[in-house]
Amino acid sequence: MASFADRLMSAIQRKNSRVVVGLDPHLQLMPPHLLEDAYLEHGEGAEAVAQAIIRFNEAIIEAIAADVVAVKPQVAFYERLGAWGFLALEKTLAMAKEAGLLVIVDGKRNDIGSTAAAYAEAYLGDGPLAGDALTVNPYLGEDGLKPFIDRCRDGDKGLFILLRTSNPSAGDLQDLLVQGRPLYLHLADLIDGWSQGTEGEGGYRSVGVVVGATYADEARQLRQQLPRLPFLVPGYGHQGGTAEDVACCFHPDGTGAIVNSSRGIIFAYRERYGAKEFARAAKDAARDMKVDINQALGLGA
Amino acid sequence: MASFADRLMSAIQRKNSRVVVGLDPHLQLMPPHLLEDAYLEHGEGAEAVAQAIIRFNEAIIEAIAADVVAVKPQVAFYERLGAWGFLALEKTLAMAKEAGLLVIVDGKRNDIGSTAAAYAEAYLGDGPLAGDALTVNPYLGEDGLKPFIDRCRDGDKGLFILLRTSNPSAGDLQDLLVQGRPLYLHLADLIDGWSQGTEGEGGYRSVGVVVGATYADEARQLRQQLPRLPFLVPGYGHQGGTAEDVACCFHPDGTGAIVNSSRGIIFAYRERYGAKEFARAAKDAARDMKVDINQALGLGA
Repeated sequence: MASFADRLMSAIQRKNSRVVVGLDPHLQLMPPHLLEDAYLEHGEGAEAVAQAIIRFNEAIIEAIAADVVAVKPQVAFYERLGAWGFLALEKTLAMAKEAGLLVIVDGKRNDIGSTAAAYAEAYLGDGPLAGDALTVNPYLGEDGLKPFIDRCRDGDKGLFILLRTSNPSAGDLQDLLVQGRPLYLHLADLIDGWSQGTEGEGGYRSVGVVVGATYADEARQLRQQLPRLPFLVPGYGHQGGTAEDVACCFHPDGTGAIVNSSRGIIFAYRERYGAKEFARAAKDAARDMKVDINQALGLGA
Repeated sequence: MASFADRLMSAIQRKNSRVVVGLDPHLQLMPPHLLEDAYLEHGEGAEAVAQAIIRFNEAIIEAIAADVVAVKPQVAFYERLGAWGFLALEKTLAMAKEAGLLVIVDGKRNDIGSTAAAYAEAYLGDGPLAGDALTVNPYLGEDGLKPFIDRCRDGDKGLFILLRTSNPSAGDLQDLLVQGRPLYLHLADLIDGWSQGTEGEGGYRSVGVVVGATYADEARQLRQQLPRLPFLVPGYGHQGGTAEDVACCFHPDGTGAIVNSSRGIIFAYRERYGAKEFARAAKDAARDMKVDINQALGLGA
């Protein structure tokens, strides 16, 4: 059983891609004809929206599978539809796995004790919502993360712990000075300790961190501080991060990080080709992003 | 439209109760006959488990409704069943509202921008998963909380922000010293600012905090620092907190906090009456807890 770290790095090398695509189905940005068709078939309600999302994701996954290593469904966009939304999420996970993609469930879950264990079972177990990795929030400390980390150490699952986020208020807590250093650097040391024992054969750990692309100097420092942890890097494209900004999340050999774009890929049809060709627009946008990042890293396209 | 704060304080006074019951359906602790009946009817799978949970919650809600102000379903226990679990959660929310109980959805959700807005829509909107209040995690700072706080300020919803948790590793981040003070006291000041403008007519705000019952001195200090914020206090009973421990979360007039117990109430049948009478056991345990807290506060039972 290969570790998540090994599976991730293997996918990066095989596809020569460091791209993750966020499957965040904003209804206002979806191709209108998908929703209209679903309303005609199922009436206007959560069932129809869920069916439209399934069709949308199915086409997107098929279009991007060759050029990206993973998809990252953002659970909130499914959750707001209730049970129907989770049905759409379950089908999306199954389709992505079938297409050979890794699945990072973006849930930012967190809790303590038996509740953390229940989340770990849901998203890193073998049920219908299980992905290959999950995003989690560290505010509750080590014991809240342990049920998740155990599944990385003892199984083939992965974790990305929120460390340095890319939003304007990220610093409210993350920048508070602890013994002269920002909190997130202190947290980095803690995560370095918690993640020990999750190393794959390639040397990377299966417990990684989320590091926003909008603070390049900070990412560079974290890359040095946590050399064996995979970085999941949001913020490319729509949120303002460029390939040059994200480059410092990588080691010189082009390993160590994956970069997420959501609406810049899945809603690329708004910039090119139009709604009927949303899948082709996503395919070309994903390939462009792959090349853009590879070039910034001095790698072959 | 009454604010959440006013609705909460009104329920406390009307029922003379400060009790919240956590609806956390641990399968291993459920009355076995409920699961067996469901397996016979639906086969062994997520659908059967969801149906058993619905029947369990229905009986618990009816039994406790007169003596408690709110129920707090812990989303993880539903989420691990996938779409069927969310169907059970939707029905549970509907049953609790029908019984006149406030519903605090314990999801500890957190994210940024449009994703935080999607969570706010899911749990504080008007869809099938919407409760009266939601628990959230503050690690991402103010902009991640704003979509939730807006629904408290402009609508009738409530929020409980994780501030001081009751788990052994709570201190990993929460105790880090920032300018000589533990981080959680610094966060308390931030939340005091963020929650302004959510006051109800009774003076309490609709944005409150989660304060664990296992650290009584700290709770006392937070009660002084945040006089108008409702406290949601986990840790009573199973986690070791006593009525005396939680008493310092209240103002002298017996307002300002609600105390949660989960397995100590819903699985009380394991201590008295047996599995067939799980509902009666929960009813008596809820009433005992109500009286226990009221006596510790020097109030009439």
